[in-house]
Order: sequence, then C-alpha cells, then structure tokens
Amino acid sequence: MSKTGLLSLIWDGENLEMLDQRLLPSEIKYSKKTTVQEIWESIRSLEVRGAPAIGIAAAYGFYFAAREAPDTDFESFWKYLKEKSDYLASSRPTAVNLFWALERMEKKVLESKHLPISEIKRLVKEEAEAIHREDEEICRKIGEYGLTLLRDGVGILTHCNAGQLATARYGTATAPIYLAHEKGWKVRVFADETRPVNQGSRLTALELMQAGIDVTLICDNMAAMVMSKGWVDAVIVGCDRVAANGDTANKIGTLGLSILAKYYGIPFYVAAPTPTIDLGTKTGKDIPIEERNPNEVTCSFGRKTAPEGVKVYNPAFDVTPAENITAFITEKGIIYPPFEENIRDVINC
Amino acid sequence: MSKTGLLSLIWDGENLEMLDQRLLPSEIKYSKKTTVQEIWESIRSLEVRGAPAIGIAAAYGFYFAAREAPDTDFESFWKYLKEKSDYLASSRPTAVNLFWALERMEKKVLESKHLPISEIKRLVKEEAEAIHREDEEICRKIGEYGLTLLRDGVGILTHCNAGQLATARYGTATAPIYLAHEKGWKVRVFADETRPVNQGSRLTALELMQAGIDVTLICDNMAAMVMSKGWVDAVIVGCDRVAANGDTANKIGTLGLSILAKYYGIPFYVAAPTPTIDLGTKTGKDIPIEERNPNEVTCSFGRKTAPEGVKVYNPAFDVTPAENITAFITEKGIIYPPFEENIRDVINC
Repeated sequence: MSKTGLLSLIWDGENLEMLDQRLLPSEIKYSKKTTVQEIWESIRSLEVRGAPAIGIAAAYGFYFAAREAPDTDFESFWKYLKEKSDYLASSRPTAVNLFWALERMEKKVLESKHLPISEIKRLVKEEAEAIHREDEEICRKIGEYGLTLLRDGVGILTHCNAGQLATARYGTATAPIYLAHEKGWKVRVFADETRPVNQGSRLTALELMQAGIDVTLICDNMAAMVMSKGWVDAVIVGCDRVAANGDTANKIGTLGLSILAKYYGIPFYVAAPTPTIDLGTKTGKDIPIEERNPNEVTCSFGRKTAPEGVKVYNPAFDVTPAENITAFITEKGIIYPPFEENIRDVINC
Repeated sequence: MSKTGLLSLIWDGENLEMLDQRLLPSEIKYSKKTTVQEIWESIRSLEVRGAPAIGIAAAYGFYFAAREAPDTDFESFWKYLKEKSDYLASSRPTAVNLFWALERMEKKVLESKHLPISEIKRLVKEEAEAIHREDEEICRKIGEYGLTLLRDGVGILTHCNAGQLATARYGTATAPIYLAHEKGWKVRVFADETRPVNQGSRLTALELMQAGIDVTLICDNMAAMVMSKGWVDAVIVGCDRVAANGDTANKIGTLGLSILAKYYGIPFYVAAPTPTIDLGTKTGKDIPIEERNPNEVTCSFGRKTAPEGVKVYNPAFDVTPAENITAFITEKGIIYPPFEENIRDVINC
C-alpha cells in the first residue's frame, strides 16, 4: 500500500493492480488485470469507480488491446484496436471520462500511423501512463493550492467521496488533506456518511483511515452539531459540474452543508479540476438533476427500512448557489468571487 | 384500524391491543395484552415505544395487576400491587413517563384506601383510561392550535417520529397534519428518514401512509433541496426538552433543519406538550447530550457500511437555539417570542 493510503489503481509498467471497490469497506483486495476483457468487466461490474479512475483503467485496457493486436500492417492493427476500443466504451455507457480517455488513445494511434507498429504500441503505453500521471498531477496541484487555505491543526468536513479512490491519487476534495498529512500537519476530518449510497462511510472514511489520517464518521444530519461545536474550520467538497456563474452541482446534501457553513461563518470550498467547469452551462438552473431508484433510500442496507410502496424523492445531486461558495480550488489556482469573471479568466488562461 | 391511521394502543374496556413496533415497517401485527407480565415484556422488548405510549401501557399494566390482586383486605391488595408496580418500573429504567404513570396510579390507590377494594379496582381502571384519554387530548389540542398556522394545500417537513405511534393518538408534531387531513385539507408531508435509527422512514412515513396522508420519504440531506424547490411551507418537529429560554433539544438533525428553514424563510415550529418544557433548565447549554453506540451508524441495518474500527460521533440529540424557532405549539396555545417571558406565562397560567 502507498504511503498516502489506499490506491484504486497501481501500474507496474506492464500490468494493472486494481482494488475491488465493491468489497469496500469490509475487504481490501487487489487483483491483476492483464487483458482488455478483464478491464471491461471491472468497469462494467463497478470493481473500479470514480470518473478519473475509470478513464485511467480504460486507457490501460486500450493498451492491453494494442499489446495483443496483430502487428502485420496498420490496417489490421487499427481494425482490431478500434473494435476493442468500442467494446471498452460499451462497459459503462454514461461515463464521460471513459469516452474521453478512449478518444485520446485512438487519436494517439491515428496520429502515429506512419510509425512502425511496435513504436505505436510503445506510444500507446506512454499515453495511458500520461493519462494516469496527469490525473495525479491535477489532484496534487489542487492539493497544493488547497493547502494554502489551511493550517496545522485544522478541522475539515467533507461530503461523499471526492477521494483518491476515485482518482489516480490524492483525490480532489481530499487532496489538501493528504498533502497536509504528508507535511506532518495534524488534520481532523469529519466525513458525512452521505446517504443514500454511503460513499462517505464506505469510501472516504476508509481511505483516510488507511492513510493514517484522523477521521470521524458522522451521519449527514450531524454536520450542524459538529459545526456548532467549533470543530470545523473549513468544508471541502468535490463537484460534478460547475456552471459559468459558479453554481455547483454535487452529491445530494452539498447544498444543505453550504447553508450550514454560511450560518456558522465557516469557509466553504469546492475542489474543482478545471474540466468539471462548464462555461457552456450558464447557471445552476441549466443543470439537469437525475433522480435515482427509490430502493437506494428504502433498502440500501440490505434490510427494508421503509414501508412497502412509500413515495420517495431521491435526487442524486443538488445545486449549491455560487453565493454560498467561498472559493474554488482548481489545479490552476484558487478562484474567488466574483466567479463569473474569475472563472472565465482561469479557464481561458 | 382507526380512521386516523395506525394506533399503537387500542383499549377495548378490559384488555389492550398492542401494535408490535419492532416489526415495523414490514409487518403490522397487534396482540392482546391481558396480564402485567405481558405489559412488562412489551415495554422491555420495545414492542411499545414512545414516552407517552409507554406510560399508557404501564398504567394498563398496573390495572391488570389490580384486577388480579387479592381483595381480602387493603394491606394484601396494596402489597401485591406495589410489588407489581415496582416490577413494571423495572421494565425500562430510563423511561420517565413510565415512572410518572405508575406513581400517578399508586397515588390513586392510596387516596382511595378507605373504599371497598372492588371500588378501588374500578377507580384504578378509570385512572389508566384517564391517562390514555388525557394524552390523546393533549395531542388533539396541539393539533388544533397547530392547524391555525396551516392552510389547505400546505407542504410540511418533519423529522424523526413525533407521531401517533409514540402517543395515544395524533402524535405531537404530526397532530396538526392528522387534523388537517380529517378536515379534508390536502397536506403534503416530507418525512426525513432520520439517521441513524430511521424513525422517520420506519415509523413516520408508515403511520402517515396508513392514514392516507400524502407523504414522501427523503434522506436527511435532501431537506435543503426540497425546501429550495418551494415545496415546504412549514417545518414541524417534536422535542425532548425545552429550556426556559426556548432552546430545544430534539433528535439529532433538528438543529440543521432549523438553519435551513431560516435560510429559506420557512417557519419552524416545535410541537411541545407543556410537560416537556422545563423551566428548571435555563438554556440549551444546560441540556446534556447523550452519545449513542457507534454501531448505530456503522451497521445499524444489518450490513456493515463503514470500515472496522472507524471513529464515530453519534450524538442522539442536538439543541436548536431559540432564535431559530418561529413558535412552540403546545396544548395550551401557540407560544411566540419573546420566549423567556411567554413560555413562563403559559406554563404558569
């Protein structure tokens, strides 16, 4: 295990060790992936989760395909590879990072078609490693900028899992926490369990514990109490999409936290890799909110906890208005209000 | 079943039909209690729960003891009865209402010692029925006063179970909802599931559904989203203890809701039978907060949802500051700020 805790993906230069996230938090089990078929199954079955991690796994899957592809001529090579790439894309048809990674890999191949196939295979491997490394760099940058907002002894509350289990390393919201810990600072983290799917208790609490960071699990409805005690110096959350005006869609519960933080005068930070900032989305009103299966609420713990047939409202996300956000922590720097202007400047620079 | 929905206790004039609340929400099963032993077991095993409901069950248990007690002379009668009363009191040593009800029953017997034992037995039965009826009256009064704050078509959000399953009928926070429904008003209720023990999903959602009331179950962290949509016209919650200045201890999560309601300009009402108002407690700072077993958070529904050994903070209650409360709904009327003054006036009148 890495010094910084539990990694989802470990690349040994030729094969991928993958943590089976379906078994978390009860069991920590890695298995070696060496074929495109194994990568497809791991994405399909949610063995690997988190948008960046899925993209990285798919990139290595693409390399596995290239490794075994016929090297007689480019046409056969490409035909084989394109078929495998489409196959990988079918593993989880809603995962944007999956398509992004595969398109980048395909582009690399097509750009290199004049080269010997053995050379293309080498470039494909390098491209997969670059996708992996760049994600780690983005997260590390977010961590470094985030660190400037913190101090030794800080108390941080986070929601859901924007952690390193979802990324190459460090995570996004957790990146400043890991870097503070690496630096030897004492950090005390409160992790919301994050109903209904409990990413906070199953994943965030686990990965921080594994890294030796002081983490306390709470139910979502305990955040106000923890803040009222003065234990929280900053809230840091991840995000699914940031609109041009700074309105931010993130896991359900984020909006409420932002209101509580405002009430208690606690800074509320959103860790946002710049690709999640979408200038094409003007405000939060333009972000569609997916409603998920009621079963997540009524029987997600294996036992039925609600009456049969009860009406359920189960939105996957909510939108935090820009006015509740103190700053965005991106890999290009901290963005303060006025967001409309400052977000545009950072994205376009 | 009653027209107003699921009752915890149904008295037929000689025996008690009791709903087994341990089986909720999956199974609705009543059984007839006819002996003091059965009542003891039902309280001990949590078949009956909710402070008022426990008090009522204990009062009927006391009557069952009186019914079977020797009627040769008062001394033998009292000796037998006092022993059974102490036995009933041992069923749940932390339940204040249990002791209150038994003391009231004992007092009735001692006051009546000059009467024939058959007459005392009749009075004992009447006293148990009075305890039962008075609780219903308190709840109904709370409902009637609460109704003056609502209108047809209202949306109400509630937390935990301050419902009729915990009382003789109507509940406290739910009383205005039941009366609005009886009146033919359309009411839309949002019930927080109320982690970690899910009284909202297991009990509140169930009893309102059974009464034919439009109820939607949400996770606690969805309340802000529901409020932001304009679906909530009032929050109504119960309470465990109200301090002299209006600070209110209630189920964990209430504090956060009060802050959200304030942010969205939604009235925040506390349904408070006057016995829960404690003038001896000056402010919320004087209310001790019990911390409960971490297992409730990490594996309360039969599946482990958090890593082994994770640190957990699990306070049972939080304290909502008086400034976040719009009004108290009591059986003696609505209490508005300034609370310090107006609470004292209502209690002392």
